[in-house]
This record gives sequence, structure tokens and C-alpha cells, in this order.
Amino acid sequence: MEKSNENVEAFGWAARDTSGVLSPFNFSRRVTGEKDVQFKVMYCGICHSDLHQIKNEWSNSIYPMVPGHEVVGVVTEVGSKVERFKTGDKVGVGCLVGSCRKCENCDNDLENYCPDQIMTYNGVYTDGTPTYGGYSDIMVTNEHYVVHWPENLRMEAAPLLCAGITTYSPLRHYGLDKPGMHIGVVGLGGLGHMAVKFAKAFGTKVTVISTSASKRDEAMDRLGADSFLVSRDPDQMQGAAGSLDGIIDTVSAIHPLLPLINLLKTHGKLVMVGAPEKPLELPVFPLLLGGKLVAGSAIGGMKETQEMVDFAGKHNITPDIEVVSMDYVNTALERLLKSDVKYRFVLDIGNTLKKN
Amino acid sequence: MEKSNENVEAFGWAARDTSGVLSPFNFSRRVTGEKDVQFKVMYCGICHSDLHQIKNEWSNSIYPMVPGHEVVGVVTEVGSKVERFKTGDKVGVGCLVGSCRKCENCDNDLENYCPDQIMTYNGVYTDGTPTYGGYSDIMVTNEHYVVHWPENLRMEAAPLLCAGITTYSPLRHYGLDKPGMHIGVVGLGGLGHMAVKFAKAFGTKVTVISTSASKRDEAMDRLGADSFLVSRDPDQMQGAAGSLDGIIDTVSAIHPLLPLINLLKTHGKLVMVGAPEKPLELPVFPLLLGGKLVAGSAIGGMKETQEMVDFAGKHNITPDIEVVSMDYVNTALERLLKSDVKYRFVLDIGNTLKKN
Repeated sequence: MEKSNENVEAFGWAARDTSGVLSPFNFSRRVTGEKDVQFKVMYCGICHSDLHQIKNEWSNSIYPMVPGHEVVGVVTEVGSKVERFKTGDKVGVGCLVGSCRKCENCDNDLENYCPDQIMTYNGVYTDGTPTYGGYSDIMVTNEHYVVHWPENLRMEAAPLLCAGITTYSPLRHYGLDKPGMHIGVVGLGGLGHMAVKFAKAFGTKVTVISTSASKRDEAMDRLGADSFLVSRDPDQMQGAAGSLDGIIDTVSAIHPLLPLINLLKTHGKLVMVGAPEKPLELPVFPLLLGGKLVAGSAIGGMKETQEMVDFAGKHNITPDIEVVSMDYVNTALERLLKSDVKYRFVLDIGNTLKKN
Repeated sequence: MEKSNENVEAFGWAARDTSGVLSPFNFSRRVTGEKDVQFKVMYCGICHSDLHQIKNEWSNSIYPMVPGHEVVGVVTEVGSKVERFKTGDKVGVGCLVGSCRKCENCDNDLENYCPDQIMTYNGVYTDGTPTYGGYSDIMVTNEHYVVHWPENLRMEAAPLLCAGITTYSPLRHYGLDKPGMHIGVVGLGGLGHMAVKFAKAFGTKVTVISTSASKRDEAMDRLGADSFLVSRDPDQMQGAAGSLDGIIDTVSAIHPLLPLINLLKTHGKLVMVGAPEKPLELPVFPLLLGGKLVAGSAIGGMKETQEMVDFAGKHNITPDIEVVSMDYVNTALERLLKSDVKYRFVLDIGNTLKKN
């Protein structure tokens, strides 16, 4: 049944070209296969990468494109062999809807590093059709790529599924989750503010590092960071040299690594989750002299994503969001480009997506 | 007694200027303090860094300079409070003869990252005098920076104390010491050949990566590497993409990291132990997409250095060396500059250092 031609009507908003403007779009989803979960989308976050994809800035865009990979909904139908979900369950889907399930990465619950991973939108599914994301009324997803959404967690907290796991995973993988550690977070946007929240929930002391002194109040008062450094102030940076066990660097613009490496203690870890398009300068001597490392990390595997939303539910960790209606999406994208949001837009799909 | 003026006569070979030429040198050592071990030097390795220091290429040279930080000898006298050594013991001294003993690094047996570490030569000791290394007849060293030399290990294997620990430490620290892992070693000199030997002793599969195809036979036949890659051959490198758990990169020339990062599996680790003087280009996307890291590592702490020589003794791991007489040192330095040695010169101090 998975490759049936009897598709299901779906409706969403799509980019048709590189203009950056979305408009209403009628399309279809596959019928619910035996391992599939069909769900009504309730909320979908707007990720900064949606901007890049919509405008084909990564040169791999497929149009029409229905974006959205921070998706929370309610199950409407399950396939005959689905084991973990039933109609009425609250569920989440993040960046992935497929992977090969047979490589070493997949065997190790690292579907996020599977070379044959299938992205939730702007990908090509196993049946050859393009994948469409969560800016739409329903989704049909293999249950392996669906997580249970904790009952006590607001469904609006959909950005956990990308911004959340992207920061949670490296904190855990690199052992930067021990109470009493001192963690730096560079950049205070969708990713950065989640890094602060998870690091605080792990019991670490958190220092936010930003180019802009104007972020101090929001970092400390709003998000509860313990301290703040202006990265362009050499005296402040020198005063904090050698003080951090690890840093989550969320900045995707070209930026110098040396001042961040200098903030690390011996064996300190600088983990990049933002993706500058050009190579950065890596000074090797400072890495050697402190036994330090610079790493990259991308989202997380499905098992860890479930663990992350469960942790978020238990500790009541939610993103700071601005919920907007579907027809506000183009304005939201324009504002996101100017970083005019604290810190993530979430589309209220369930209540505001109206079929024309 | 540690700061006594009644010094002990010593004799060695010293650089007097940036010419790169050493000549005989009469100097003095402190008398054996209560925590000191005095020993007769038997063998001292010539490290590539000796070349840089002798010529002031790191702009911090103190002349006259007696180089040598791979030193093995026999104890001739111990201070009243020395607990771990007695006269007649075989001992080794590596790159360090002092550290603060009170910082977090020292507390964690990471004297090699103590900001107040005192180098074995070209350093300044706690009493304000310059430190002189192992190209000399006797040394006097605080016992904390002295290791027991295993009875069954040839004393000529002195390069373990720098080249050995420099490669052993990152293999251990980064967990690249598990049987069945696949480890890459970049560059086949003093450091690289030790990395191959330790990695093989840990039970890993070893691939040597070199710019020069001419190194294939020595890598595989002489050192027992399992495979070999010419780093300038894109087809070979592509064929091995994603195959390595970790890489020890011993190259100190400027070189591209991307081809090495591409060789790593997911969560793979590229550890640099060579120190290029200018920053390298770090491509961030490939790090993110594989959850990979680039790290630096410098020698090792005293506890780990003891562990390393014990491991070398147990597994009979010794550097490949050319033993030369003291008066050959200037020729040896010239040959080392041309990489004309497999793989380390060792000065036979005990038998050939003659006082004029």
C-alpha cells in the first residue's frame, strides 16, 4: 500500500520560485502506508533554514516547496503495522522523514548523519515524489521519524524539533550537561536561546556571548543566563579566558574562532551548530596548547529527539515564540530575516490554515 | 637547599646564537634539592622542535641553550624527601621539569597544560635560572617530572618521552585505542611512526596518509601499517571517505583539512599534534554534517607519561632510531632538517660526550 496512487488531498502554503514569497498550494499526500502515521498539523515553527531553502540559497531547492520541519499535530490514522502510535496521539516530526535504516549511522540511532537521509521538505521520498513539510494541513510520515509529544508540553513548542534538538544533542554528546560546568552560548536567536534553556536545565552556569551589548538584559533577565560577554570587547573576553568547559556556537556568519577558543578551559569544547558557508580560520597552536577541540553537530537522531522532548516536558522547557496565523507567513519571513522575533515564529496551522 | 649557590659542574653542547650550530659548553646544575633526582644522562633524542628552538624560530630562545627533552639516564643521587627513586634507577625526563602544582590542570594530572609549566630547556626555573636540557652529562630534576624507565626497555628509546607521549596521549584521550577501530596517521616522521606503533599496539587498523607515494613501502612493510593513502590522489582519498574513526595529524606545514575530515566516519576525530604556524582553513559544513571534530593535543601529563612508558615496555614499543655520537650532533641537525633520518636521532651521551 505504501506506493499507492490513490493519494490524499492536502493543502498548504508553498514557495513557487526564489522570490521568497509563499502562496496557497493544493497538493496530495500518499495514503497511509502500513508503517505510516497520518496526522493533522496543529503548529509548525519557522526555522531560519526555511528562508535559505525558499530562496534557493543552498542551490538545491525543488519548487513548489512546502517548508516546515518543526511540526506538531494529532494523529488521524495509522497504518496496519504501526506499533507506537494510535489515533488521537499528539506527535512531532522534525527535520527528517527517512533514512536508509541499514548503515552504521542508522544502526547507532544517528539517522541525522545517514548519507541517505530524507529531509522533511525539499527532499525526495523513496517513491520518487518530493517531500512537503509542515506548512500544511496534514502529514503522512513513517512512524520511525515520529516522536510522542509529551502530554504536558504545549503543542506550540514545535521549535524543539529543530532548534531544540540541535542544541540539546551536542550538550549531551560532548558531556557538557554536568551540573557545575560552565557553558558558553554564542548568539541569541532561535538556536541560542534554546541552548541557554537546556544548559540551565542541566544545572550548568551559562554565559551568553554576543557581538551586541544590547542583548545583555534579555540574556540575563529574560533567559536566566548567569553572565554575559560582548565578544567585540577584548578586555571582557580576556577577563573570561580559560573559564568555559564548552561553548555552543550558533552563529552562521563568518566569525573569528580564536577569541572563543581562548575562553575554553583545558580540554574545552567549541561546538558549532551554525553553518558558515565559507571556511573559518582555525588557529592550531591555541588548540594544541589547551588540548581543545572544535566540533560540528547537526540536529540529532530519532531516539535522542524523543529523549529531548521528554526532557523538555519533564523540565517544562519551551522555546520563546510568537504564534502567528498562516496568512502572516510572508510577513513573518521578512521579520525573521531582520531577526525581528524573540525567538521563533510558530504558525498556528490548526486554527488558521483555511483552504481557499 | 633547593636554592643553594653551591652548584655542581656540568658539561654539554649548547647553541650560542641563531646559527644552528652547537658547541661544547661548561655550565653548572643546582645541587640536588630535597625533592630532586640527580641523574647521569645516557641517551637523549633529537626532536624536530630542537631545530626551531636552536635557531630562535619561535622567537623565545635564551642563549646559551642546551637542548634535549627526550632524556634517559641513571640516578646518581636523590634528595632527602624523594620518595619514588633511588640511586641506580633508570629514569626518563621529557618536555617538562616544572609546573605550578596548584592549578586545575595540575590537580588533574595535566601538567602539560599548566600555564606556568617549565620546559626542560629554554625555560626559566623557579630559582630564576635558565633550564638546560639533555645534551649534557648530568641533570637535576624534581622527582615529580621524572618517570621510571622500565627495566626491559632499551634506554636508547628516549624519544618515547616526547614523540611517544605526544601520539599516545591523544589516542587514549579521544578513545581511539579500541581494538577494531580504524585510525589514520598523517605524516611519517618522528611523531607519525610512533603513532603507527601505538595504534597497532592498541589493536586498531592503521592507514598512513602521506603526500608522497614513496612512503608506502616503509609504512606498510617496515612499520606494519594496514593500508596507505596518497593525500594528493583525490581518487584514493575519495575511495576511503568515511572510513576512519580518528586521525592523528603530525604535519606542521600548512595543509588542507577538508580531505582529512572527509576520511572520517560520523563522530570521527581529527587530532592535530603538529603545529602549523598560520591558521588553517576549517570548513564547517563537513564538520556539522558528520558530527566530527578537529582537536589539538600537546605531549601529556606526568602520570600519563609513566603509563605510556610502562605500556611501551610491556608491548616492546620503541622508536626507530639512529644512534649517533655527541660530536655528530651538528651533522644530525642538518640531516634532520632534510628529514634524512628514520625516524629519530638519539645522542649516545653516556658513551660519547667527552669533556674537553
